[in-house]
Amino acid sequence: MAEVKSDIEIARGASKKAIQEVGAKIGIPSGDLLPYGHDKAKVSASFIKSVQGKENGRLILVTAINPTPAGEGKTTTTVGLGDGLNRIGKKAVVCIREASLGPNFGMKGGAAGGGYAQVVPMDDMNLHFTGDFHAITSAHNLLSALIDNHIYWGNELAIDTRRVAWRRVMDMNDRALRQIVVSLGGVANGYPREAGFDITVASEVMAILCLARDLKDLEQRLGDIIIAYRRDKSPVFARDLKAHRPMAVLLKDAIQPNLVQTLENNPAFVHGGPFANIAHGCNSVMATSTALKLADYVVTEAGFGADLGAEKFFDIKCRKAGLKPAAAVIVATVRALKMNGGVKKEDLGTENVEAVKKGCANLGRHIENVKQFGVPAVVGINHFHSDTEAEIQAVKDYVASMGEEAILCRHWAQGSAGIEELAHKVVQLAESGAAQFAPLYPDELGLFDKIDTIVKRIYRGSEATADKSVRDQLKQWEAQGYGHLPVCMAKTQYSFSTDPNLRGAPTGHSVPVREVRLSAGAGFVVAICGEIMTMPGLPSKPSSENIYLNENGDIEGLS
Amino acid sequence: MAEVKSDIEIARGASKKAIQEVGAKIGIPSGDLLPYGHDKAKVSASFIKSVQGKENGRLILVTAINPTPAGEGKTTTTVGLGDGLNRIGKKAVVCIREASLGPNFGMKGGAAGGGYAQVVPMDDMNLHFTGDFHAITSAHNLLSALIDNHIYWGNELAIDTRRVAWRRVMDMNDRALRQIVVSLGGVANGYPREAGFDITVASEVMAILCLARDLKDLEQRLGDIIIAYRRDKSPVFARDLKAHRPMAVLLKDAIQPNLVQTLENNPAFVHGGPFANIAHGCNSVMATSTALKLADYVVTEAGFGADLGAEKFFDIKCRKAGLKPAAAVIVATVRALKMNGGVKKEDLGTENVEAVKKGCANLGRHIENVKQFGVPAVVGINHFHSDTEAEIQAVKDYVASMGEEAILCRHWAQGSAGIEELAHKVVQLAESGAAQFAPLYPDELGLFDKIDTIVKRIYRGSEATADKSVRDQLKQWEAQGYGHLPVCMAKTQYSFSTDPNLRGAPTGHSVPVREVRLSAGAGFVVAICGEIMTMPGLPSKPSSENIYLNENGDIEGLS
Repeated sequence: MAEVKSDIEIARGASKKAIQEVGAKIGIPSGDLLPYGHDKAKVSASFIKSVQGKENGRLILVTAINPTPAGEGKTTTTVGLGDGLNRIGKKAVVCIREASLGPNFGMKGGAAGGGYAQVVPMDDMNLHFTGDFHAITSAHNLLSALIDNHIYWGNELAIDTRRVAWRRVMDMNDRALRQIVVSLGGVANGYPREAGFDITVASEVMAILCLARDLKDLEQRLGDIIIAYRRDKSPVFARDLKAHRPMAVLLKDAIQPNLVQTLENNPAFVHGGPFANIAHGCNSVMATSTALKLADYVVTEAGFGADLGAEKFFDIKCRKAGLKPAAAVIVATVRALKMNGGVKKEDLGTENVEAVKKGCANLGRHIENVKQFGVPAVVGINHFHSDTEAEIQAVKDYVASMGEEAILCRHWAQGSAGIEELAHKVVQLAESGAAQFAPLYPDELGLFDKIDTIVKRIYRGSEATADKSVRDQLKQWEAQGYGHLPVCMAKTQYSFSTDPNLRGAPTGHSVPVREVRLSAGAGFVVAICGEIMTMPGLPSKPSSENIYLNENGDIEGLS
Repeated sequence: MAEVKSDIEIARGASKKAIQEVGAKIGIPSGDLLPYGHDKAKVSASFIKSVQGKENGRLILVTAINPTPAGEGKTTTTVGLGDGLNRIGKKAVVCIREASLGPNFGMKGGAAGGGYAQVVPMDDMNLHFTGDFHAITSAHNLLSALIDNHIYWGNELAIDTRRVAWRRVMDMNDRALRQIVVSLGGVANGYPREAGFDITVASEVMAILCLARDLKDLEQRLGDIIIAYRRDKSPVFARDLKAHRPMAVLLKDAIQPNLVQTLENNPAFVHGGPFANIAHGCNSVMATSTALKLADYVVTEAGFGADLGAEKFFDIKCRKAGLKPAAAVIVATVRALKMNGGVKKEDLGTENVEAVKKGCANLGRHIENVKQFGVPAVVGINHFHSDTEAEIQAVKDYVASMGEEAILCRHWAQGSAGIEELAHKVVQLAESGAAQFAPLYPDELGLFDKIDTIVKRIYRGSEATADKSVRDQLKQWEAQGYGHLPVCMAKTQYSFSTDPNLRGAPTGHSVPVREVRLSAGAGFVVAICGEIMTMPGLPSKPSSENIYLNENGDIEGLS
């Protein structure tokens, strides 16, 4: 077996093309690329406007089974499939999310794919990239500062200081900031109150940036953010503080999609990165919509497994942006299926066909779910060197028994050469015209009924439950005109249920909605089922200890 | 009189050249320019290394009288003089500081010059620019998170949690964050303690970035940061948390100087922006040193008036970086001299020659002070349309009576054409070889004696005073090996004394040192004399309310 290189070594060895050359492949003139270094660029607003009349290419969603510690390789497959489609003669663009900087110093690996299916420059992408997340942090915290400043100077808007709904954000894993008291120190510093920080990707500004159609829409949505409530429970908006306009100024570059390239020099848009629990977990509408105007195929991914990620992609992003996916790829690995079949992580190296078969129940559920949206699906088995023939065949047989196809992919080790078969299958599905996309529920359904529909039809639970206070809150929002919004489920990504240890394909569980939040700017109601962490902490041995510049000035320790 | 355009209108109308063309003027190949858009670029580390063998050009400092609400135009004069030197045939580069984003949303105007002596793109420069300050914020807060994380996981280093010296930073005016309690919420979030945020420009990381010679030196200095003390008062360093290496990774691009251009397409380095009170208030050593290798003349500025800014420029930056300034320009305006002479702001429009003469005492003091460092000086009178002939003549006569020259400059209205005379005079001074630069005090002098020297020789006070605890602290640092460091005075910028209302040229005042802080990474001891605000607040009508994108997508309201 050949020497196995680390992701960062492969990325560093990439033969990158000038970003202008990459842009030219999909017809972007170099004057419309705002360069950030020689290998990253933002696409100009005027160019995006100029292509609006063009026909759309075909949109392919890459989703996955429920994630496990074994890893599934959803981003890797997204990138690999993009390269594979280009290899078989289709003009294809990959659309993925940007990585959050903070978690890299904790324990998370990078978010640029892996092996020979990566987007580069991976080190920049895992650090400051083109500054989008910093801009979101600034815009978010400007609003936070304006709120406390407004209270400080007399609180003309009669904000109930116990009901400030807007926290602060930082792109760092810092548990000490989760719950704090601000404005201590006497009259010069203001009015002490409880507050806290979330990580930047959890900001509603991030969700807004990713759902906005253009800068004007962005400004409008920023104005719609509810920052607090008055004593009479009436909402106070960001617009009331005149905050939406300077926030849009801070975001004017961040909203433009970022163009980079795969290891095989194919174009990739990497733009936006909202949380996949309290937000919808997809890259930006601006990037996806623009890519569809420029390519035959756009391959994109959604966060977590298909129960959360694909559902939100369909019910929030596609619904709101008018996108019509042509096909979906559900990524699975033998190892992850084995974990879903009850195998412990330390035993994954041993062949266990029975466990694979058992774990396939999870995969089968996701196949059924994706098809509920009218989107044809194929399974991509992301190959790992320890997979045995018998295990792989078990997956193929299971999927065949459902009337669908599972295709083994070796893009991690071989790049596009290892994923040709899947690429051909995706083209066949997409060009068959089989897709009849429709969201799961209509806008008109009541908010709680929307949640209940997802619980029953996607999670296969018995019902959604909630205290009267939660149901009353939903009714109040309906009365205030927010009833037409889709719901955004915040639930563990590890199970169809709310118990992260309940792998496979459970049924009959009830799903308690603990809390609901209104993201009026982003345009969805968040239903929180279980504990959701919006500010991660660092482990006892943070990965920061191994991140450094080597003697050549190259970064080591980012993976 | 012609229509008077606003700074942002003039900046927007600029005929900018591609940044590669600007770089070519001073011999930077386009491959060594890392572009950020078409009008900003960072200079590569390898290029900077390649020019180290070259001879230095001449370094010109632009400083000023004590600032007043009337405005002096120090940056405007720096930029104008750079253009003026280019106009008379010298290859000149301007080196100024980057602007902080946060204060733009409060009440501060931009920091890119004014009128027809500006650096562009001024809107970018007042917003995210090339992301340097965001990188500094991230690096600073990574260290903060690692400190609380270390305590959370058992505090192996035995940090005294009452003596954590490292706060957090944000580039925003947010008074609510000045004094906070973190880690509330029980065992999962850690150990509650008092903490707080400063604005990013007050970060020691900012001072370090600006004083570092290269990336290696940066990493070393980051490791030297004292983050806390143990119960036995021994210091705990950033190095002990292995934080310096990932911090350097976060700063690897930020440390490279940024190249932009003046309205007249001359090169300008805009890099770094440390506070001028608790830090030294100059642009980066990397930028200044690189510019000196590429140009005949480098025009740079220091923060506040010459008592604080020039003193620190000479005693900290020049001392540590081995720079030898060839001449200094002291900027004054008739209006500011009148305020120093006792006139109220609302009466500045009325001719008052006597007040000008009285206010000249302030100017005279600064002339004497600059000459104490062995640097020849000339006064630049930054013209304002309401200045009368008699008032201007009064300044010229006063300066002539001191054996020096004051030259009227009209660069604000006329660009380089208005500042030719000053440019010729600067060349004459610099080429005369009159400069015999030496810092005010030797490294070997005791820390308190260094403070006392500055008080007596620069502020013309009777003495520095301090409680025993302050003097003991200084002695302890001397015992720990920090006695050779220069001191960095944090004092009101409005007066030679510690009373901001005491304008003119007071003598005999004592200067109480309230507190001392050790910036072991940056390499100076801060002496705090009076109230120093390291996190500004927003006014009741923040300027954010007037900052917006107009129908063309241009930014309005930044000035």
